[in-house]
Amino acid sequence: MKNYDRYSVGYFPPATPHNEWVKKDHVEKAPTWCSVDLRDGNQALIVPMSLEEKVEFFQYLVKLGFKEIEVGFPAASETEYHFLRKLVDDNLIPDDVTIQVLTQSRKHIIKKTFDSLVGVKKAVVHLYNSTSLAQREQVFRKEKPEIIKIATDGAHLLKEYAAKYPETDFSFEYSPESFTGTEVDFAAEICNAVIDIWEPTPENKVIINLPSTVEMSMPHVYASQIEYMCEQLHNRENVIVSLHPHNDRGTAVAAAELGLLAGGDRIEGTLFGNGERTGNVDIVTLAMNLFAHGVDPELNFSNMPEVVEKYEQYTDMKVPPRQPYSGKLVFAAFSGSHQDAISKGMRWHKEKGLRTWSVPYLLIDPKDVGREYEADVIRINSQSGKGGVAYILEQNFGYSIPLQMREEIGYMVKDLSDKEHKELSPAEVYQAFAREYVNVFDPIDITDATFMKASDYKSNDGMIAKIKVRINDEEYEFEAVGNGRLDAISNALKMTPYTFDYKFVTYSEHALSAESSSKAAAYVCIEDSDGNQFWGVGQHEDIILASVNALVSALNRQNKKDHFVE
Amino acid sequence: MKNYDRYSVGYFPPATPHNEWVKKDHVEKAPTWCSVDLRDGNQALIVPMSLEEKVEFFQYLVKLGFKEIEVGFPAASETEYHFLRKLVDDNLIPDDVTIQVLTQSRKHIIKKTFDSLVGVKKAVVHLYNSTSLAQREQVFRKEKPEIIKIATDGAHLLKEYAAKYPETDFSFEYSPESFTGTEVDFAAEICNAVIDIWEPTPENKVIINLPSTVEMSMPHVYASQIEYMCEQLHNRENVIVSLHPHNDRGTAVAAAELGLLAGGDRIEGTLFGNGERTGNVDIVTLAMNLFAHGVDPELNFSNMPEVVEKYEQYTDMKVPPRQPYSGKLVFAAFSGSHQDAISKGMRWHKEKGLRTWSVPYLLIDPKDVGREYEADVIRINSQSGKGGVAYILEQNFGYSIPLQMREEIGYMVKDLSDKEHKELSPAEVYQAFAREYVNVFDPIDITDATFMKASDYKSNDGMIAKIKVRINDEEYEFEAVGNGRLDAISNALKMTPYTFDYKFVTYSEHALSAESSSKAAAYVCIEDSDGNQFWGVGQHEDIILASVNALVSALNRQNKKDHFVE
Repeated sequence: MKNYDRYSVGYFPPATPHNEWVKKDHVEKAPTWCSVDLRDGNQALIVPMSLEEKVEFFQYLVKLGFKEIEVGFPAASETEYHFLRKLVDDNLIPDDVTIQVLTQSRKHIIKKTFDSLVGVKKAVVHLYNSTSLAQREQVFRKEKPEIIKIATDGAHLLKEYAAKYPETDFSFEYSPESFTGTEVDFAAEICNAVIDIWEPTPENKVIINLPSTVEMSMPHVYASQIEYMCEQLHNRENVIVSLHPHNDRGTAVAAAELGLLAGGDRIEGTLFGNGERTGNVDIVTLAMNLFAHGVDPELNFSNMPEVVEKYEQYTDMKVPPRQPYSGKLVFAAFSGSHQDAISKGMRWHKEKGLRTWSVPYLLIDPKDVGREYEADVIRINSQSGKGGVAYILEQNFGYSIPLQMREEIGYMVKDLSDKEHKELSPAEVYQAFAREYVNVFDPIDITDATFMKASDYKSNDGMIAKIKVRINDEEYEFEAVGNGRLDAISNALKMTPYTFDYKFVTYSEHALSAESSSKAAAYVCIEDSDGNQFWGVGQHEDIILASVNALVSALNRQNKKDHFVE
Repeated sequence: MKNYDRYSVGYFPPATPHNEWVKKDHVEKAPTWCSVDLRDGNQALIVPMSLEEKVEFFQYLVKLGFKEIEVGFPAASETEYHFLRKLVDDNLIPDDVTIQVLTQSRKHIIKKTFDSLVGVKKAVVHLYNSTSLAQREQVFRKEKPEIIKIATDGAHLLKEYAAKYPETDFSFEYSPESFTGTEVDFAAEICNAVIDIWEPTPENKVIINLPSTVEMSMPHVYASQIEYMCEQLHNRENVIVSLHPHNDRGTAVAAAELGLLAGGDRIEGTLFGNGERTGNVDIVTLAMNLFAHGVDPELNFSNMPEVVEKYEQYTDMKVPPRQPYSGKLVFAAFSGSHQDAISKGMRWHKEKGLRTWSVPYLLIDPKDVGREYEADVIRINSQSGKGGVAYILEQNFGYSIPLQMREEIGYMVKDLSDKEHKELSPAEVYQAFAREYVNVFDPIDITDATFMKASDYKSNDGMIAKIKVRINDEEYEFEAVGNGRLDAISNALKMTPYTFDYKFVTYSEHALSAESSSKAAAYVCIEDSDGNQFWGVGQHEDIILASVNALVSALNRQNKKDHFVE
């Protein structure tokens, strides 16, 4: 591939190693979450949200548990201004929720920002300016001291304007925008200049937000930058270190997580990673990653299908099918060996009565995010195996397919999927199974069967069967004795003009609890003198007649219509 | 969110720290790439690929530069068997490409696997068995020695069967499947048992593949596991350590990259991360991450739109719009400040004649993956600013909008996007601009204008303008003198029965190179006595008449039809 030599690493790791974070194994506490869906997410949409959509989305974010929500850039956009006023004037901001607004470091913009906040109880005013080498050289054409002055001028103005509105509880946030392209020592210098003006206290902390505006490095380099910043920042105990990762290199989730190990306290991100270009970090994945490690995520995604639906409605974006925890396919097991392991793992958990989760191939229990095993996990295509088909017939329809029968059914269903070139729904799997095996009554149909104990005969344990049987549309009536019911029927059938060539291989039966408690299912396998085996399944309210139907089904699968002659 | 307490970390980091990798900054050399699109990717599709699609996809993977391609599990599926035979029988495997096939450790499956490979020049036979604690307990219900025996039995069989086909150059690969749920010391033990049987040499190395079958840990934990394994494996110098990350926690790219720093030599993954559940690691992102750090990725994604198109065609999956490097939106800048910075950055690079890339907000030059600035970068919605609109008018239509005029045009276009609730295409931006500003000839239209030097008059530098002008459908003809052409026209207009209230603020003009080299564009700003400014744009083959048209357009924007009366 041409032109790779046009590029080089454009980021600035600390001069000395800052990798203490690597000794920690996982994140043990949820960070403070700040949703930027309505600002960073919204501005990256082909069609930004309407005011009504924003209001609904805001309320949904509150419902999910967000306590900090960036609502826009009210001084830069009329729509965002009106949205903010609507939230305030209609009293839509709960007491425990803080809204956040973004502002550039320009006097008339800061003034308008504070004007737009009149009447808000709590707000974070978020000041930013670009600090990266590239922006300084190419866009602003300014030296470092001038760039610092932009930040400190803004910092002074925020303090000044906030003092004019004592009824609002203001917090301040500063972002050295394009932090990942900024020399870390300069980033520390400019942040400290702002901190020194704001003079945070334990009661009035400030937020220093370190955006990966463009993700330029591997995530461990970002983590070492965060660790360095945490060491350098003045008044660190009164500073909330916030991370705002973008996903240009596909590692925003990792950058956020390693950044938290390195000292980050707070995450700015969006649902499903909406946002500029490749998007912001996906807060759903971050929160669910905590969940899967046994940490309370402090956000509620227990109804993930609804979260997906709402998000898609507001943004007109789609959640991709492989999006972690939320995509349509993320719990799907098509492969036979995976299906088999999942089925066995589920059974093992059930047998042991375990509440803890360690089922193979499934990081979490789909039910914990409102998904279903039936529809979402065991899915049948031409790559699927016997385990999955048996699981579907058992879970959805109540059939406990005998182990020796599973392979045969598996192949039948696989072939059908291959031939029709599509995934089979559980209903289609059942239909194929029922059509082929269950209550097959042609060419042979036993239309009536009664049994009695053969105690008046010489054999002690025998049974007498009295059957009416229709074969190729002709009716016969015979009575015969046997060791058991099925044996007696077999003997009666041998009295017809037809030749039967089979012996019993195996037999089992159970109540069909899933579909109807009053029905029973029976499974019969017979074998001809060449060793060919034939399975049949019978179903009936009467367990005895279910077994008769199973035998008849097996016989009909052996003796196909138009080929079964006297 | 309920139920987080059902979970805990289920992985096994090394007992002692293994974090030497963290000292490395980035990956400096492309790993060996192995595509598993046709196996892992395919088996996770709702509708697996047909034989024809697989053949095409295989050939496309070869074209992209893959030298190792896993083609399936030929002993487990008729379709995969036939596909493999077609590749061999039709001579579709280039000499420098090695195909790889997967097999379970069971004699009849291994036998069929080797049967299916007859006539292949080079092949990797990939043996696996499940080794995780969960699989041992729940699925296989076997102790560690029995699990090792499954692996070593298979390893012996591979050696035995390979010896039967001396015409093929076989390599062996072993995967302790579900490695991430396996105790690392047990993983090392089982891999070493296999290595000891295979006895690799510098000429005949073996591949030890360490799959993150389910991604269970943060990526740095996976890296420490890889570093531990690299330290433990026997005969390390003759072992190729392969990584096969899945994306359950959304950090597969990070896991792969940190794993490479920790000693991994090879990556198994798929295009755009197709694969079981959340998918495999996305090889496109991994390769492009190397590219963006100035490392030759040894795969060719320079025509990314084609890669996306082919992938979507073969798999029936979609590449999401925010997928790094390949999604439709990943180069899009809607926000005004981003557009402005990109425009300035591009100009800076052009001015300096730089081949190296460091434009703000764009990790790489979109042209390097076959994308366009015009269609993909500067996009206009209601959040966009003056910079973007000016950029589009300049890049696509050749208009260099004067700096002072940009804000006004920006607001007009923004409002239009807001009102129509949609993104505006470059053509729509141009139409709105042209409709409002360019050659506006109503109610005033100068239908003819001739000029001559006023040397016979007293003023030295003056101009005489002789104009025909139509105002509100009445024609007038006047002649007047002025300091320059536009001034002379102004004086002539003042001779009509109408009252004109304006003075010139600024004027500029340029050739319209983009659209037609024979046209010129002129910009005039006038101001009334209340200080209101009006811009007009003129266009004409004749640069003089372009300026006249600009003045007339400005006058018509000042004096609207039906309101301009005598």
